[in-house]
Amino acid sequence: MMTDDLRSLDAFFTPDTVAIIGASREDGKIGHTILENFVHGSYDGAIVPVNPEADEIEGLQCYPSVGAYDGQVDHAVIAVPPAVANDVLQDCVDAGVPAVTIVTAGYEEIGAAGEKRQEELEEIVAGTDTRIIGPNCLGIWDAYSGVDTLFLPDAKLDRPPQGSIALISQSGSFGSAILDMGAEMEIGFSRFISYGNQADVNETDLVQWLAADDETEAIAVYMEGAHDGREMYDRLREVTTDIPVVIYKAGKSGGGAEAASSHTGSLAGSYSVYKGAFRQSGVVEAKNVEQLFDLSRALAYEDTAEGEDVAIITNGGGFGVSAADYIEAYDLSLAEFTDETREALEDVLPEYATAHNPLDVIGDADAERYRKALEIAARDPNVDAVLSLVLLQPATMSDAIIDHLQSFKEEYDKPLVSCMVGGAYTGERLRELEHHHVPTFSTPERAVAAMHALREYGLWEDRPD
Amino acid sequence: MMTDDLRSLDAFFTPDTVAIIGASREDGKIGHTILENFVHGSYDGAIVPVNPEADEIEGLQCYPSVGAYDGQVDHAVIAVPPAVANDVLQDCVDAGVPAVTIVTAGYEEIGAAGEKRQEELEEIVAGTDTRIIGPNCLGIWDAYSGVDTLFLPDAKLDRPPQGSIALISQSGSFGSAILDMGAEMEIGFSRFISYGNQADVNETDLVQWLAADDETEAIAVYMEGAHDGREMYDRLREVTTDIPVVIYKAGKSGGGAEAASSHTGSLAGSYSVYKGAFRQSGVVEAKNVEQLFDLSRALAYEDTAEGEDVAIITNGGGFGVSAADYIEAYDLSLAEFTDETREALEDVLPEYATAHNPLDVIGDADAERYRKALEIAARDPNVDAVLSLVLLQPATMSDAIIDHLQSFKEEYDKPLVSCMVGGAYTGERLRELEHHHVPTFSTPERAVAAMHALREYGLWEDRPD
Repeated sequence: MMTDDLRSLDAFFTPDTVAIIGASREDGKIGHTILENFVHGSYDGAIVPVNPEADEIEGLQCYPSVGAYDGQVDHAVIAVPPAVANDVLQDCVDAGVPAVTIVTAGYEEIGAAGEKRQEELEEIVAGTDTRIIGPNCLGIWDAYSGVDTLFLPDAKLDRPPQGSIALISQSGSFGSAILDMGAEMEIGFSRFISYGNQADVNETDLVQWLAADDETEAIAVYMEGAHDGREMYDRLREVTTDIPVVIYKAGKSGGGAEAASSHTGSLAGSYSVYKGAFRQSGVVEAKNVEQLFDLSRALAYEDTAEGEDVAIITNGGGFGVSAADYIEAYDLSLAEFTDETREALEDVLPEYATAHNPLDVIGDADAERYRKALEIAARDPNVDAVLSLVLLQPATMSDAIIDHLQSFKEEYDKPLVSCMVGGAYTGERLRELEHHHVPTFSTPERAVAAMHALREYGLWEDRPD
Repeated sequence: MMTDDLRSLDAFFTPDTVAIIGASREDGKIGHTILENFVHGSYDGAIVPVNPEADEIEGLQCYPSVGAYDGQVDHAVIAVPPAVANDVLQDCVDAGVPAVTIVTAGYEEIGAAGEKRQEELEEIVAGTDTRIIGPNCLGIWDAYSGVDTLFLPDAKLDRPPQGSIALISQSGSFGSAILDMGAEMEIGFSRFISYGNQADVNETDLVQWLAADDETEAIAVYMEGAHDGREMYDRLREVTTDIPVVIYKAGKSGGGAEAASSHTGSLAGSYSVYKGAFRQSGVVEAKNVEQLFDLSRALAYEDTAEGEDVAIITNGGGFGVSAADYIEAYDLSLAEFTDETREALEDVLPEYATAHNPLDVIGDADAERYRKALEIAARDPNVDAVLSLVLLQPATMSDAIIDHLQSFKEEYDKPLVSCMVGGAYTGERLRELEHHHVPTFSTPERAVAAMHALREYGLWEDRPD
């Protein structure tokens, strides 16, 4: 359900016309980078550079103010020095711009002088129809509309492919670094929002908007402290009925919370309160940076698990042993195969293999033996979910395994989490599986943590009313 | 101190002459791959292919048996089917070969039939001067001598660069997969040994040999169960006085231990006993696959920490908050800066920064501001170790930071652990720092875990007699 209040955020993501206030010809300037993003990226709406000292930039007519442009501006990006940012914000309000992203820093995050500036900013928009993201943020990167206010150099920050994970981050540097990390893993994203000082739009608004977004299947959140904890809790309880939300909360420790307070001005609050609130509102908590992606990918790509009994299929015995350890550590169980399953497995395995879970199909297995074992195990009624651990190093294990995993995903209802450990050769296959939405991880622990998230969210989905 | 017993292992690693028994012309055969490794790799000793059905392979004269070769064979690699492997082993013993690697599988790991074969094998070498690695193993890859019995296809398994980490693994597939992972990270290794069924040479022998090896600065071990727990404990207590040993133990859980028993025939034993033994023998325990490398690299490249007070320096506030959380979770502390340090920091930081630990030098910092802050913090007498968290995405942060970190390592005595989060651009810099032995990690948690290992091993070094 999308309220008018939330619909007012649409203009941030799908504007027909954007204005870049502080657009610059000068390479290296923030206003130059942002203009270039829109001109040379996939955005195909109208672009209005605003700069009183230029007639034309990048072949586009330049305007002295946003009000000087004849048509409707849907989304204005403010990238001017802090001393004049509030003045141009006033211009935006006067021109009836519904969405303004203020990347300019120098507000409450710098202490007393900035606090006054932020109060002025809040007064300017109070009671108007103008919504604000920022100030002191990177703003928005939208994989579908091409909106891209990230002003970090292209060469240093790759943009990921289109996909279904939305990422929102209170910290711009944290958000951009992990977006960059995700790009290298070729994880598909829908939108990324760095919301900075949240003078207006906050993490709760964004989570609600993303929950109603057709392109988004899971929401990953980095936060230090909530704008309004109670409000967030109530909204999360609603949102998580429709879409998984994974949160990495920083500022858990005494020292971390103190640092958060000087970093984003957040009251990080008691971690145990957050932890309890997450659990009771169906949020899946990420314990570290990797899990923010790992759990989101599993939840976006796979069905939840209907029980905790997992079958492990591997061609590397050691990794089977290691994964079995994590199954226990993450409160899951090793499924007990039925007699029928064991007999069927014995037919396809060499006699020196044991038809036991974790199932080691042996290092000399080819992709076909592996596929048969995987499917037999998956059909076992005692098996709720399948963890596939494939080592690609053996000569016998061909790339056919990649196709088999994709087919399995299409043909079987049980959730599949996959793991492949290795270097460059393996990395390429990880990326290929990612494109096909088979959630694949580089270590057994990461895979089992993802499996645990599928069970945890499954329990939330099935909770009594 | 190296006993004669251990000196007898030298021939495995630095043979003047190797024999490849089962050398084959046929692409894809194990005996072909191993021969190619020696012929086309960096090994520069004599190579003796043994195959009764060929006169010449790869331009080398072929012999019908190892005894038919005139000179001394130092290291024989047996890569023939199990039915004849013991016969050729007898030939090796008769020919006085001191070191034999048996990669052939089909021994006790396959159950009853194989157990008999393994007993025969043990009888053949009992009381002789022939030492055995294997059977059922990948054998040895030596970065310095070029010995390379890994029979997995080159294209699927990269070899890492020369370096100072030794890796030994009870599981061949585990070992090769993480060697491959290490190769992609460009981690430098000295030797890798997959020791399989340990019919003779076991993990304790190997750890002792590596402890006396000039090229090795840290020993990483994957094990499921010890051959002789008491013996291992006694030897580890001695060895860890000279060199750090990091162990990842699998088979911790009930299901994992049972899987270990059918995988390597190991009695994985009670994990709590292992855990206690590791702690009391100065072993640093790795909690997961990544830590096996992460902790080994930190311990190989850096001095141990003399206290738990860590300074965090970052240009990304969010990561500073996150790292502070891990400092507490890993039983370390945030150092309290002295007044002198705070004043000195205030001189080099912009006024909107706070001279407080974790120290956020702000996202607009250049490499020079970062360097100054890093050095001021490191000179603080309250600081025992430095955690450098650098985000490379901002335009202002140039590659000069890479040089600064290297110089810091050379000029300052305090241990330095570094973290950089990002994608392809950042990954290149991680590899460059790895070549310069600045231990650098891709997430704050991994960096803090490595820092914790430097403190843990420092406490062991300083233990009362």
